[in-house]
Amino acid sequence: MLSLRLTSLTHLFSPPSSTAIARRSPAILRRRNHHLRPRPLAASFSSQSAAAETQDRVDNSKNRVSDRVITPRSQDFNAWYLDVIANAELADYGPVRGTMVIRPYGYAIWEAIQEFLNVKFKETGHSNMYFPQFIPYSFIEKEASHVEGFSPELALVTIGGGKELEEKLVVRPTSETIVNHMFTQWIHSYRDLPLLINQWANVTRWEMRTKPFVRTLEFLWQEGHTAHATPEEAEKEAIQMIDIYTRFAYEQAAIPVITGRKSKVETFAGACKTYTIEAMMGDKKALQAGTSHNLGQNFARAFGTQFTDESGVREYVWQTSWAISTRFVGGIIMTHGDDAGLMLPPKIAPIQVVIVPIWKKDDEKAAVLNAASSVKDVLLTSGIKVKLDDSDQRTPGWKFNFWEMKGVPLRIEIGPRDVASGSVVISRRDIPGKQGKVFGISMEPSNLEAYVKNKLDQIQSSLLARAIAFRDSNIIDVSTYDDLKAAISQGKWARGPWSASDEDELKVKEETGATIRCFPFEQPQGIKRCLMTGNPAEEVAIFAKSY
Amino acid sequence: MLSLRLTSLTHLFSPPSSTAIARRSPAILRRRNHHLRPRPLAASFSSQSAAAETQDRVDNSKNRVSDRVITPRSQDFNAWYLDVIANAELADYGPVRGTMVIRPYGYAIWEAIQEFLNVKFKETGHSNMYFPQFIPYSFIEKEASHVEGFSPELALVTIGGGKELEEKLVVRPTSETIVNHMFTQWIHSYRDLPLLINQWANVTRWEMRTKPFVRTLEFLWQEGHTAHATPEEAEKEAIQMIDIYTRFAYEQAAIPVITGRKSKVETFAGACKTYTIEAMMGDKKALQAGTSHNLGQNFARAFGTQFTDESGVREYVWQTSWAISTRFVGGIIMTHGDDAGLMLPPKIAPIQVVIVPIWKKDDEKAAVLNAASSVKDVLLTSGIKVKLDDSDQRTPGWKFNFWEMKGVPLRIEIGPRDVASGSVVISRRDIPGKQGKVFGISMEPSNLEAYVKNKLDQIQSSLLARAIAFRDSNIIDVSTYDDLKAAISQGKWARGPWSASDEDELKVKEETGATIRCFPFEQPQGIKRCLMTGNPAEEVAIFAKSY
Repeated sequence: MLSLRLTSLTHLFSPPSSTAIARRSPAILRRRNHHLRPRPLAASFSSQSAAAETQDRVDNSKNRVSDRVITPRSQDFNAWYLDVIANAELADYGPVRGTMVIRPYGYAIWEAIQEFLNVKFKETGHSNMYFPQFIPYSFIEKEASHVEGFSPELALVTIGGGKELEEKLVVRPTSETIVNHMFTQWIHSYRDLPLLINQWANVTRWEMRTKPFVRTLEFLWQEGHTAHATPEEAEKEAIQMIDIYTRFAYEQAAIPVITGRKSKVETFAGACKTYTIEAMMGDKKALQAGTSHNLGQNFARAFGTQFTDESGVREYVWQTSWAISTRFVGGIIMTHGDDAGLMLPPKIAPIQVVIVPIWKKDDEKAAVLNAASSVKDVLLTSGIKVKLDDSDQRTPGWKFNFWEMKGVPLRIEIGPRDVASGSVVISRRDIPGKQGKVFGISMEPSNLEAYVKNKLDQIQSSLLARAIAFRDSNIIDVSTYDDLKAAISQGKWARGPWSASDEDELKVKEETGATIRCFPFEQPQGIKRCLMTGNPAEEVAIFAKSY
Repeated sequence: MLSLRLTSLTHLFSPPSSTAIARRSPAILRRRNHHLRPRPLAASFSSQSAAAETQDRVDNSKNRVSDRVITPRSQDFNAWYLDVIANAELADYGPVRGTMVIRPYGYAIWEAIQEFLNVKFKETGHSNMYFPQFIPYSFIEKEASHVEGFSPELALVTIGGGKELEEKLVVRPTSETIVNHMFTQWIHSYRDLPLLINQWANVTRWEMRTKPFVRTLEFLWQEGHTAHATPEEAEKEAIQMIDIYTRFAYEQAAIPVITGRKSKVETFAGACKTYTIEAMMGDKKALQAGTSHNLGQNFARAFGTQFTDESGVREYVWQTSWAISTRFVGGIIMTHGDDAGLMLPPKIAPIQVVIVPIWKKDDEKAAVLNAASSVKDVLLTSGIKVKLDDSDQRTPGWKFNFWEMKGVPLRIEIGPRDVASGSVVISRRDIPGKQGKVFGISMEPSNLEAYVKNKLDQIQSSLLARAIAFRDSNIIDVSTYDDLKAAISQGKWARGPWSASDEDELKVKEETGATIRCFPFEQPQGIKRCLMTGNPAEEVAIFAKSY
């Protein structure tokens, strides 16, 4: 009845048809050009797209290189970011302002994030479940600082089934309120604790300034919610989860985040403490890439979430919540990408190795494709995500550029001479040109598998090391406000002792544009004096401009 | 930094604390009692819940058996269904009318559905992606029959960020319109086709009569959307996907669906043809458990989704869409459950085997728990989803009933005598009492693994065989309208030749409450005459009352 083709995940990401570079994903570019400012490159790209609608340009564009349409990163970071998203087909704008369509290649990166975290959440005792996204408006009002934080950003459903609703419904911006409403029904005794759950869901925040992945009106995330019998347990949970995020960032995404505690001003609306992972993007702006909140008893008191403890006394539960979202995909792009486009860490790359067969004469083709296909099978069997780009539509040079732009970590080239010598040529995405290219790697399966796995590991480590070096060379230790202002005005991060007031913190923001990203867990030894007041300070804080 | 406990998925579903049977999930029962009609059993259960809020009843309830609170299926199928959902902790009502919270045990069944289908979708060349859930109202109006079908069920966002919106936004009831809006931007030439995508998402339909899993205001599903160059390809795709659903239903869920084509009256709003899988529930009502639509060019014309074919001519694409939702979880409950509660097919059971250790004296406990733990490790290692219920809070008898109610396919009992003889006792959920119980199965790992795997396979087959027998004994072949009416009034399905008009079809619905579920793919041979008109008929149709 069924005839299922058995193929790898990665075959799905085929190169677009030959006109696609000129035509696909024009919306992001068009929108940007239209609303922000016209740029010559993108503008001409955009008009090509329009013209192309009535004419097929296959042959004309056969040798057009894909990276020509990407603005150099150094020239305009934001334009580069949008170009990469459009050209690598990661996302497109949705029809409603601020919404985003996540395209297959972008979604596959999100799936890699999900796969890793989902296992870690389950290993640490959390169960997945699902809460409704419609929340009665009255719920949002129950926790005072929560309503203050979220009410300006709400999307409200007021009509259902053709009728005006008696109570407006909030499309969830986050689920603490509805979670607590249910927890109150499920939790009775200390034996019901800890209650450890997670959901993968969409959330909506009516943001005014949006940017694909980084800040969109609707986004995807996971939100963990837990309830505990003691404050110590809740604190331990909040720390455990920010540690899992940290480990994910370093080990999978090769992003050397700085983990720490938010200042009171920057703490989540409704939380006692917020822990955060802060990542330095290629333009040195900070990206808050994940947070874990110790909610104390704030929501428990607002919703009456109590349990009977071992001595029979009714107590409010202690809670946490924690989240990572599709914003993280933006962080990956902006950490590793370069002028040639995307650069993906092997552990989260939808395609880890692309094979480009090279032939000139028709009589070479069969042997080359045959060898390429064997190499593909060898790598597939050993669990490597591999794509064979055997299309006739494009030159090898075009394919090199295209897959570099898509950020594939390793490229294997196979030509007639390689077939004759039983070897292949392997190029690293992270080391451009001849330096990253090694000739004469034997096709012998066990050799090839070991070589490729080893190279992928090297690339993974190398991306992390490079990001660490970049981060560390752009954080300046400061001991006065003048130092801080100088560092920020150079576009760097400033790290210095801080024990000043919330007002001083807001003054820094107003005068420099920088905020306290966190008080890092890793603190320098020694006596510290607040950079602003000169008073004793227990901790250094990190200041930076941020997304 | 991190200390991750490595545990199995299934350890997450621990038995509730000892008061939980009396206390947890009261909402579903309370709601039912309140809004539908009070029932003595549930009413007393419900008042227990309320009373329990201020008092801990652990010890009193130690020997209370869990199945006492489940209404017998034969007595009241609907009450039984809601009792099972509440007691097995599959779902609870959300605070907004018609919404549902999917609890961990219920969500794990959905995850099993996702895992199987997600692989099949990728094997057949589909990529996951994500479309925004907010759709401009004007989009819904573009396809005439689509707007007619969906407009009464829409939830509308009219306020965003504190301001009245210029255009109302529809919270997606399904995504054909926004998908086509994007496809129009992505598809240019025949080389861009076929375009094969899927998304896992929540959808909202403002249903007036709701029922957990079966019909809720918001539900989870996957929706596949494809575009093709020819009508033949689209038709092949629509058939391929209904075949995958059919295979999933038979092989994983042990539900012997009848696969066929919907009548014109029952076709999806906007489709040319709808294929469906129809399942017979335990009360003999039909459940539409999955659909696959051949959309023809309807949405392509409404949204201008065109491509340039090989000869340079602009053509509209041919499309399909197909979906399975959390409704399927309801189908599993209502197909296999019995008076004792849920009965899960091994292939989708979150816990396939539960181990219940039995001891009386303290000096027996260590040896029994030790043996139970070894057995658990053996099964875990061989990939079986196993749960060891070693809690001190409950008697073995209580645990037997509890895990039966949760539908776990196999139970392993280990007592002191079993430890002495190096053997275990194994009971099947699908065969009650002594008949399903086998003593003296050797604990020797390879023996035990083989025995358990074999038994799980047998249970899987047996559930399917039983459901097939039930289905076939409740379908009556009819050749006249009187026959049909008689069959339906007996609560059965009627199968008979049909070539009458839409009006006649609506008359059947009005007079009998039954609708055409489908024209099955499997058709009897021979000449047929329409049961209503006596005219020649090409096909038999199946009529039934449905959810």
